[in-house]
Amino acid sequence: MDDFIDQKVSIIGSGRVATSLAHAFKAQGIFINEIYSRSITHAEKLSRALPGSSATDSLDLSHSESKLFVVAVSDDTIHEVVGQFQPPKGALLFHTSGTVPIEILDTNAGGIFYPLQTFTLNKVVDFKTVPILIEGTDTHAEDVLLSLGSTISNHVKLVSGEERKKLHIAAVFASNFTNRMLAAAEEILQDTSLDLKILEPLVFESIQNAFDFGTDKALTGPAKRGDSKTIESHLKSLDQNPALKSIYDRLTAMITSKFSRPN
Amino acid sequence: MDDFIDQKVSIIGSGRVATSLAHAFKAQGIFINEIYSRSITHAEKLSRALPGSSATDSLDLSHSESKLFVVAVSDDTIHEVVGQFQPPKGALLFHTSGTVPIEILDTNAGGIFYPLQTFTLNKVVDFKTVPILIEGTDTHAEDVLLSLGSTISNHVKLVSGEERKKLHIAAVFASNFTNRMLAAAEEILQDTSLDLKILEPLVFESIQNAFDFGTDKALTGPAKRGDSKTIESHLKSLDQNPALKSIYDRLTAMITSKFSRPN
Repeated sequence: MDDFIDQKVSIIGSGRVATSLAHAFKAQGIFINEIYSRSITHAEKLSRALPGSSATDSLDLSHSESKLFVVAVSDDTIHEVVGQFQPPKGALLFHTSGTVPIEILDTNAGGIFYPLQTFTLNKVVDFKTVPILIEGTDTHAEDVLLSLGSTISNHVKLVSGEERKKLHIAAVFASNFTNRMLAAAEEILQDTSLDLKILEPLVFESIQNAFDFGTDKALTGPAKRGDSKTIESHLKSLDQNPALKSIYDRLTAMITSKFSRPN
Repeated sequence: MDDFIDQKVSIIGSGRVATSLAHAFKAQGIFINEIYSRSITHAEKLSRALPGSSATDSLDLSHSESKLFVVAVSDDTIHEVVGQFQPPKGALLFHTSGTVPIEILDTNAGGIFYPLQTFTLNKVVDFKTVPILIEGTDTHAEDVLLSLGSTISNHVKLVSGEERKKLHIAAVFASNFTNRMLAAAEEILQDTSLDLKILEPLVFESIQNAFDFGTDKALTGPAKRGDSKTIESHLKSLDQNPALKSIYDRLTAMITSKFSRPN
């Protein structure tokens, strides 16, 4: 931070990302000034958890002492918020979305500060390991955002808008769709005496192997082995669940086409 | 184990499961007697790592002092091995497959001892947390296999053949297909300055949330939010990769149909 560590940050938003970031900044000694939410009740709730901050439902923040304004609202309301925002002179405005392009900031200086993590529950996230991907409207804004990021994370990186977008799609596969695979496993087990928990050691070992040794080496199972007898038997068992059967079929085809020689 | 802890176990097979189990038994003070492999070289290699054991490429084990014989070979060779196996009187024979039914044991007493874990690399597996699913040809065999399992694992459970089969299908989704989702993420990132490792904290947080709080609560992302603008933009970006585009489309449809109200 250097020039900015003594400065105040204001938070536009009161949801999961806003709350997580506000607490992470606060823990690093950064003063949280205004908390904005359309709902003053929501703003007040977060503000109470951050002594010294004040709640507001007005986007006229032209008299704020903050130089940094974090827009952590849902993707489809960023545009509206930026349009109504009245910043003090010299302020930098940045949003936290993996998908919304930097052009949405319009004439505001600032950028994007995208924490690559899932914020889903009342659970404290350890930001130290969370990658934060930065894009700035100019090199000064980038420097400020890189410094701000490095106060809370050890993995802050400058990326282009195109790279951030690809990363967001990759994150959908790696996080949302792996979740859907676990939900599928849960569906399959629903009429048995077994529940999803029994798969926990397998899943963690398998995922850890993928990161440690590469996805190809870590992969096991009937599709990789080219074990068509087991695959056919599994598909037949999924007759009553056409959606899962179709996914099984396609993912198996993708795996077998890659590992076409049985091992 | 009680009656069995002093007895000898013989291992039919020398692959990853055979090796892992042999070492796990040995570590619990169970004596490993014969190691069989079609390839005497392979049998000798594993035998050297287990002092006191002997290597063989003959399935005439009628003179063995073992009472327990673990068949840990690939699914499609279990039948052949069982057909040629000549056991000593009173021996119990069991295989370790999640898919092969108990009937394959033919007239042999014994059962199934299925460790629900991925054995993919030269990596020691901590069996204590690995679920071991048991099915026996009779209650005596079940008791013996439950005892044997409990020497190496804290999660030994009797399941029916039908349940074990469902569990195996569920494991394909939870392990092999989550791996495929990570491989997809890797593909998407291949032309960027980013690699799969950047997604590691996200994936572990997301998976841990799914096990701790349930798959529905842990899920985040554009499909769950009903954010059709982001979904369309992602699909367009995947135009050059029809296989991933199709998977994205289907999994998104499965998620949106479940969470039809935007949140």
